[in-house]
Amino acid sequence: MGDVFDYLSPTNPVFRTFAFWSSVLVIKVLFMSIATGLRKHTSKAPKAKNEVNEDVERLRRAHLNDMENIFLFIILGFIYIVTNPSQWLAMMLIKAFAITRILHTLVYAFAPVPQPTRVILFLMGVAVNAYMGLSVIRAFL
Amino acid sequence: MGDVFDYLSPTNPVFRTFAFWSSVLVIKVLFMSIATGLRKHTSKAPKAKNEVNEDVERLRRAHLNDMENIFLFIILGFIYIVTNPSQWLAMMLIKAFAITRILHTLVYAFAPVPQPTRVILFLMGVAVNAYMGLSVIRAFL
Amino acid sequence: MGDVFDYLSPTNPVFRTFAFWSSVLVIKVLFMSIATGLRKHTSKAPKAKNEVNEDVERLRRAHLNDMENIFLFIILGFIYIVTNPSQWLAMMLIKAFAITRILHTLVYAFAPVPQPTRVILFLMGVAVNAYMGLSVIRAFL
Repeated sequence: MGDVFDYLSPTNPVFRTFAFWSSVLVIKVLFMSIATGLRKHTSKAPKAKNEVNEDVERLRRAHLNDMENIFLFIILGFIYIVTNPSQWLAMMLIKAFAITRILHTLVYAFAPVPQPTRVILFLMGVAVNAYMGLSVIRAFL
Repeated sequence: MGDVFDYLSPTNPVFRTFAFWSSVLVIKVLFMSIATGLRKHTSKAPKAKNEVNEDVERLRRAHLNDMENIFLFIILGFIYIVTNPSQWLAMMLIKAFAITRILHTLVYAFAPVPQPTRVILFLMGVAVNAYMGLSVIRAFL
Repeated sequence: MGDVFDYLSPTNPVFRTFAFWSSVLVIKVLFMSIATGLRKHTSKAPKAKNEVNEDVERLRRAHLNDMENIFLFIILGFIYIVTNPSQWLAMMLIKAFAITRILHTLVYAFAPVPQPTRVILFLMGVAVNAYMGLSVIRAFL
């Protein structure tokens, strides 16, 4: 093991957890992507043109923001795994990120709650990404 | 081989196919990115301000949608390859995805055809991504 | 070594350089992401609605463009490293890309300079991505 350990392989439990949750998040993005596309069409008829844009734009921004965070997470995850992090910590970060993003989508799309909730979920995701990024920087400085 | 097989290496024919077509798609994205930037400038002069925005916005949305699908594909591809999929199936999915995205761009940018075409090409790409994502989830559940 | 060399591991100096600078760029994206979010709120009060949109849209476009280039670089980087490139060249490309993107952000956000500068920095980043993409295509043709 040690230096020749293959981090990006099914034999690494951290990679398995990462692969599973990354795929769950990507499936979520695909659903939101199709939902955004459908909303664009269904909301066209009844409203004035400017209102439609406002509405669709809001959904599109949420979708972009969601993707941005998830892409950063998956890209960083690949690198972070190779720094040989604590298995327990890495798995907890991966699950925490996935859960905050799923809750963020639920809160945004289905159950609008008073604002601090969504911002807190967003910032928790950012915090996981920032922690993984800084860990890699420290490891390979 | 078996557990210690290095999936993400030039010795894996699936990885070689994935790397080749992913790079072709990225080069395509780079071209579209420059084209979108140029269009923004060339279309500025002759039209009224709102029309320009409409036009450029449409191109920019197509570009974003294209990138979104291609990023998801490449990110999922890296993970999917490590699940040790059937070589024949994996290579077919990779080529199918690349071809639908190239056709999608051609249809969108150069040869506008009646609508079902573009939606079908889009959904075929989404289907490949969904299949790869679900395969990873099943493999690492 | 040779075929069984593990490219995506801490034992590969090219991977270490890539991992370090990719994480620096991701941290930069996270900062810009939060800054874009804050700007949206702070600029709401004093201006008319259309002006705000114009201003925020400009920042958001810059942020999207930045992410697009950085995502492409990191995705391509993973693949490029596996083509076993010249160590010196690969490290130089990675550092050159990171520096042009950091300068691009500084020029854009803090020190507006006459236009050719930003376009040149943008095109240098695109050139690195194009070179890496074409190298992979040639390697795995």
